[in-house]
Amino acid sequence: MPQNSVPAIVIGRLPLYLRMLTFLELEGKTITASQELAERLGFSSAQIRKDLSYFGEFGKQGTGYNIAYLQKQLRQILKIDRTWEMALIGAGDLGHALANYRGFGAQNFRIAAAFDNAPEKIGARLGDLTVQSMDELPSVLHERKIQIAMLAVPADVAQAVAGQLVELGIRAVLNYAPITLSLPPKVKVYYIDPVVGLQSMTYYL
Amino acid sequence: MPQNSVPAIVIGRLPLYLRMLTFLELEGKTITASQELAERLGFSSAQIRKDLSYFGEFGKQGTGYNIAYLQKQLRQILKIDRTWEMALIGAGDLGHALANYRGFGAQNFRIAAAFDNAPEKIGARLGDLTVQSMDELPSVLHERKIQIAMLAVPADVAQAVAGQLVELGIRAVLNYAPITLSLPPKVKVYYIDPVVGLQSMTYYL
Repeated sequence: MPQNSVPAIVIGRLPLYLRMLTFLELEGKTITASQELAERLGFSSAQIRKDLSYFGEFGKQGTGYNIAYLQKQLRQILKIDRTWEMALIGAGDLGHALANYRGFGAQNFRIAAAFDNAPEKIGARLGDLTVQSMDELPSVLHERKIQIAMLAVPADVAQAVAGQLVELGIRAVLNYAPITLSLPPKVKVYYIDPVVGLQSMTYYL
Repeated sequence: MPQNSVPAIVIGRLPLYLRMLTFLELEGKTITASQELAERLGFSSAQIRKDLSYFGEFGKQGTGYNIAYLQKQLRQILKIDRTWEMALIGAGDLGHALANYRGFGAQNFRIAAAFDNAPEKIGARLGDLTVQSMDELPSVLHERKIQIAMLAVPADVAQAVAGQLVELGIRAVLNYAPITLSLPPKVKVYYIDPVVGLQSMTYYL
């Protein structure tokens, strides 16, 4: 099935299915069903079956899904059956937290280089890396063919930096700055927005 | 309509609608329609109308939604028409980044107190706060009636700390640790998981 015929909202749910499959596996399960996934995720089982049906038949009627097999298929679909190198932009507190975040490596994402434009930060250690000047960004992105950037810069410079990244070939931006980026449609942006999370919980308080 | 009859997945989408309304307002718009919201968010317009219909009639057939009015209604529904105080647990790099994050205040969320158990961090400045000992957690949460906690502690202690928070009356946890928390169903947990964001973008690369 051609890429653009699967709605973005469906693609966005696949990582949640994958994460839930990992939880179920940790609980010692080897088989699950759309009903179980639905209950645990708060979705409808019909939606889960429909989402997965875009990509083929992953379960047998009545026997459910083999967790390991479905995980493998989802990882192939999402292209995370390989290692992705990322550039980290911004070596402040958040940059340090991201450089030490254990969740990336476990999922084959690797921060390959980190950049900042503050003279006092350039050359400093950041996790296993050395912070590089933004002047080196073009050559590093080009040489390492990096397509993914994590944007951990202050809000007032985030748009300018994001524009620069896109000009240098970045095609996916994980944005931590609390602003909306205006970028070409071909560039994917995912917003890490804690306020959205908080707002979806206060309803219940 | 009683709280629990609205599916959690619907509640989770309301902050996204609200954020998009703010974007549209910044673009100078005063009126929008479910079609416009749908296109911008990648949802279907039928879903948006259905989600909003749980809470009443917000638009007139043919004239769309008044952005300011719909924002106000959504803020009331989500109970964010007031200020919420939060406790920050963990005063490492991530804790510092959160303490300086500008997005909270703009949306009426306020970090009222910050805690860590490392002797060298207790008493240190963190944004406008002073880091307090975890020993002070029970009295501070009780006195300030804090119901929301941000968990910015290492993965290997996150479950234990979260359990303690729940015993002390916390009812909503914004979890940054890359683990799944096992907490009573009455407690809401929102996972800040950058890997889910990355995995939903690699599909397109």
